[in-house]
Amino acid sequence: MKDLLVIGSVALDTIKSPSGCAREILGGSATYFSISASFFTRVNLVATVGMDFPDRYRKLIKGFSVDTKGLETKNGRTFRWEGSYVEDLNCARTIDTQLNVFAEFRPDIPREYKDNKYLFLANIDPDLQLFILRRFKGSKFTGCDSMNYWIQTKRASLKKLMSKVDAIFLNDNEAKMFSGESNMLKAGRHLVSLGPRYVIIKRGEYGSLLFSKDGAFSAPAYLLDRVCDPTGAGDTFAGGFMGYIAKTDNLSPQNMKKALLHGTVMASFAVENFSVNRFLKIKKKDIETRYKDLRRLITP
Amino acid sequence: MKDLLVIGSVALDTIKSPSGCAREILGGSATYFSISASFFTRVNLVATVGMDFPDRYRKLIKGFSVDTKGLETKNGRTFRWEGSYVEDLNCARTIDTQLNVFAEFRPDIPREYKDNKYLFLANIDPDLQLFILRRFKGSKFTGCDSMNYWIQTKRASLKKLMSKVDAIFLNDNEAKMFSGESNMLKAGRHLVSLGPRYVIIKRGEYGSLLFSKDGAFSAPAYLLDRVCDPTGAGDTFAGGFMGYIAKTDNLSPQNMKKALLHGTVMASFAVENFSVNRFLKIKKKDIETRYKDLRRLITP
Repeated sequence: MKDLLVIGSVALDTIKSPSGCAREILGGSATYFSISASFFTRVNLVATVGMDFPDRYRKLIKGFSVDTKGLETKNGRTFRWEGSYVEDLNCARTIDTQLNVFAEFRPDIPREYKDNKYLFLANIDPDLQLFILRRFKGSKFTGCDSMNYWIQTKRASLKKLMSKVDAIFLNDNEAKMFSGESNMLKAGRHLVSLGPRYVIIKRGEYGSLLFSKDGAFSAPAYLLDRVCDPTGAGDTFAGGFMGYIAKTDNLSPQNMKKALLHGTVMASFAVENFSVNRFLKIKKKDIETRYKDLRRLITP
Repeated sequence: MKDLLVIGSVALDTIKSPSGCAREILGGSATYFSISASFFTRVNLVATVGMDFPDRYRKLIKGFSVDTKGLETKNGRTFRWEGSYVEDLNCARTIDTQLNVFAEFRPDIPREYKDNKYLFLANIDPDLQLFILRRFKGSKFTGCDSMNYWIQTKRASLKKLMSKVDAIFLNDNEAKMFSGESNMLKAGRHLVSLGPRYVIIKRGEYGSLLFSKDGAFSAPAYLLDRVCDPTGAGDTFAGGFMGYIAKTDNLSPQNMKKALLHGTVMASFAVENFSVNRFLKIKKKDIETRYKDLRRLITP
C-alpha cells in the first residue's frame, strides 16, 4: 500500500435532482476522489477552502482517514457550485459557479508529500497541473482529469499534460471534443497517440472504456435501481481506480482493468445519495460484494 | 443444429447517412435477421413482397442458404421505408413509410416449417404475433421484437405476447416506454415480471443488457472505427442471438450470454455497410475473430 496524493477542489455544492434539493453540501473533485480512494490506501489531500468552510466538513473528510494537512484555509469564501439534474439525470446543468478562493489556488504541497509515488491532478488549470507534475519527477503513476472549459481555452497545455501523465480521465463528450472524433474508438486511439499510457473514457450510466497501446477494455456501469445525485461520480470513479492501483502497487495492464472495475463500484455508491453521504454507510465488505456482482454482470 | 423460422418484413429501404445515400436497397427485419442467423443454422423465412421486388434481391437472400419458400409475392408494391441518420448516427429519422403489401400481411406458413422448434417473430402487429405463436405450441425457444408504435397502440396484446415468448428484444427507449420506468434496471425487472424468460435490451453503440430471473448480463458493443448505416442492427443482433441458440440447441443461462455476444458481433458487421452488403464479404472465420476480440474487450 502506497500513499496517494490528490490535488483539486473542495467545494460547497447546491444540487437539484429528481430526489430533491440539497444546499451547501460538501463537494469538490478532491473531496470525492480522496474519500473514494481512502477505502483502498492512505490519501493525502491538497486543496483550498475559505474561512466559511464548515468545521464539520473538515472533520467529515478527516473521518475517512484522509490526511488534510494540505487543506489550506484562505481569506475569502469557499468555491461554490450549483447544478441541476432535474431535466436529465445524466447531465448536469450548471446554475451558478463561484470560484472564490479556488480562483487563486496555488497549491502549497506539504514537504512530507513530496515523495508520494501516486499522484492525481483533479480538474484544475492544465498549466497548474503541469507545474505540479514537474515537482513529482520521481512519481510511479500519475493521473489527471480535465473539463470542456480547458479543452476550449488551454488546448496546447492540455496536450502537453497528456504526454506526461500515465492516465487521463475524460468523459465521452470531452474525449470527442478534444480529439475532434465523434467515433469513440478513434477518439480513444487519438488520445493514446498523444502519450498517456492509459486513456479512461467515462460514459456515465453506460460505464467506461480503458484504452492503451495494448487495446481496449470495456466496463458497464453497476446497475442501480435508483440514482439520487450523479455529482462527483467521475472523481469517485478516478479515486477508486487510483486508490486500487496505489493499494496494489501493481502497474500491470491486467491490474488497470481491475482498477477500472473498482472505480465503477465506488462511483455506484457515490450516486446513491447527495454529497459523500453514502460513504458514511459502507464498509470494505460492501465494496467487495458489489465488485463480485459487477464481475458476474460481465462474465459470460 | 436446428431449423430457425423467422416471420417479419422484407423491404426496400432508402437510407441517408453521413456515408452517403442508398436508394431502394434490400432491407426489412426478416431480411437482416435471416441473413445474420444463416451464419449459424438453417433459416426459414416467411415474409411478403410485391410484384416489383427485384429478382436479384431474392437471389441474394437465397445465396445465404436462407429457405425462401415462405417469401410470398403479392399483387402490389413492396414495403418501402426511407430514413436518415445524417443528424444522428444512433437514431433514425423516418422520412417516409409505405407499407404496401405488408399492410395486409397474413403469413401463410409452409407446412414443412410447422415443426420448427426455434421461432422469431420480428416486428409486426402483436395480435398477428400471438396468432402465429398459437400455431407453434411445441416450440422450444421463441423470440420476438416490437416497436414504439405497438407499445402505444396495442399495449394489452404486447403484454400478453410477452407472457408467452421466451425472449423479448426491445431497444432502451422501447423498454422504458413499455415499463414506464426511466431506470434501466427497474425497466428490465418489470419486463421479466411479465413472463418472458429473457429480456434483451438493445442500447445501440452502448451494447446490450440481458435480464432474467437469475440476474443480468451486460455486453458492450463491438468497437468499430466507422459506422456506415445502423439500419437493421437490432434485427441482425437478434438473428445472431437466435441463430446461435438454434445452432447449439442449448438453453442454459450461460449459452444465452454467449448468444448475446454473437448477436453483438453480427450487428457490428451489419452497420459497416448499407443493407446486408457486409455479409457478402465475411466468412465464419471473421465472426470467430470478432468474437475473440469481443471476449478480450470484456475480460478483466
